Amino acid sequence: MTTTETIESRRSIKHFDPTHEMPEADLAELIRLTKLAPSSFNMQNYRLVVIRNKARQKEIRAAAWDQAHVEEASALFIMCADLTSHLADPAVYWGHAPQPVQDILGPMVKPFYEGKDRLIRDEGIRSSALAGMTLMLAAHGMGYDSCPMIGFDADAVAKIINLPSDHLISFMIPVGKQTQPAWDRGLRLPDEKVVIHEQFPA
Amino acid sequence: MTTTETIESRRSIKHFDPTHEMPEADLAELIRLTKLAPSSFNMQNYRLVVIRNKARQKEIRAAAWDQAHVEEASALFIMCADLTSHLADPAVYWGHAPQPVQDILGPMVKPFYEGKDRLIRDEGIRSSALAGMTLMLAAHGMGYDSCPMIGFDADAVAKIINLPSDHLISFMIPVGKQTQPAWDRGLRLPDEKVVIHEQFPA
Repeated sequence: MTTTETIESRRSIKHFDPTHEMPEADLAELIRLTKLAPSSFNMQNYRLVVIRNKARQKEIRAAAWDQAHVEEASALFIMCADLTSHLADPAVYWGHAPQPVQDILGPMVKPFYEGKDRLIRDEGIRSSALAGMTLMLAAHGMGYDSCPMIGFDADAVAKIINLPSDHLISFMIPVGKQTQPAWDRGLRLPDEKVVIHEQFPA
Repeated sequence: MTTTETIESRRSIKHFDPTHEMPEADLAELIRLTKLAPSSFNMQNYRLVVIRNKARQKEIRAAAWDQAHVEEASALFIMCADLTSHLADPAVYWGHAPQPVQDILGPMVKPFYEGKDRLIRDEGIRSSALAGMTLMLAAHGMGYDSCPMIGFDADAVAKIINLPSDHLISFMIPVGKQTQPAWDRGLRLPDEKVVIHEQFPA
């Protein structure tokens, strides 16, 4: 499938084959592609919690308004972010770059974020969404379907996955083999509503 | 290009041909594909400010640490969000669905968000990032390149684009025709750091 076809045919799917097990090679490929998503300063501050234990999926389903696809998914991805990523040694992110680039960019990371709690949170949400969209398109290109979800009790899910206090949960993505087609695609707002040319009206 | 090839070969590009003008048909196709990104309750709360006026791009470049690709891009997308999307008549988002679905989901939208400022902001950041990642992959599939950016003075850019007070700027994406190759791809953190199986360690 071309990228255009993948974007066109990806839909939010809510019914998966509960007996399907994702082969390890597919999971590894999906993770490899997801990790190619861009991130601010290459911090890769997203964290992917991968859940394939059915008992745990059932527990999370109960914390997600009993939505069946949480349990039926071949793999449930909880898209999280590490809010301390900007504090790591920048060489971890920039060790590949020429020394002059490292010398300029490395020292910028920590001051760019430090003490700016809203920016740090925004970056966790943004980065996990860039990774998550990559994951959903990669999965669809590989013959899987998915459904981004925010309808769940984040505190309850945080407990189930032992979320560290310096991490956040952004959203979750059940991935699996579709058993029922999607609903009709949602109405799209007209371009006049969504696209603004040059400036918002004064 | 397949989706896998597009994800693998998309890179953050910082040098564009400043004389290239994006044909209207390409812009329309890029917007069409971007609008296929998923959003919570199908609210489509992202807003795309498309800037192709070179004088305005130059102004925004000055507010973005003088980064040349802001001005050289064929089209500069400021990825914004409308923080009041949950207040609209839900029929705008759900008019396509069977009446029983509309009757259940429609009334859920407003109470899900109302009064929850952090959730509303998170949703604007998340939704604009899902749309932005779709845009970057769609653009690359169409023969363009891009570079997600948060390194700019958001207040200054808000003034330039007349951003309404109930909207936010999430990030920006210059899109254009590449003139210089990307740097070596950034180091990727090992799976052990980014992928957590089942639960974080207790």
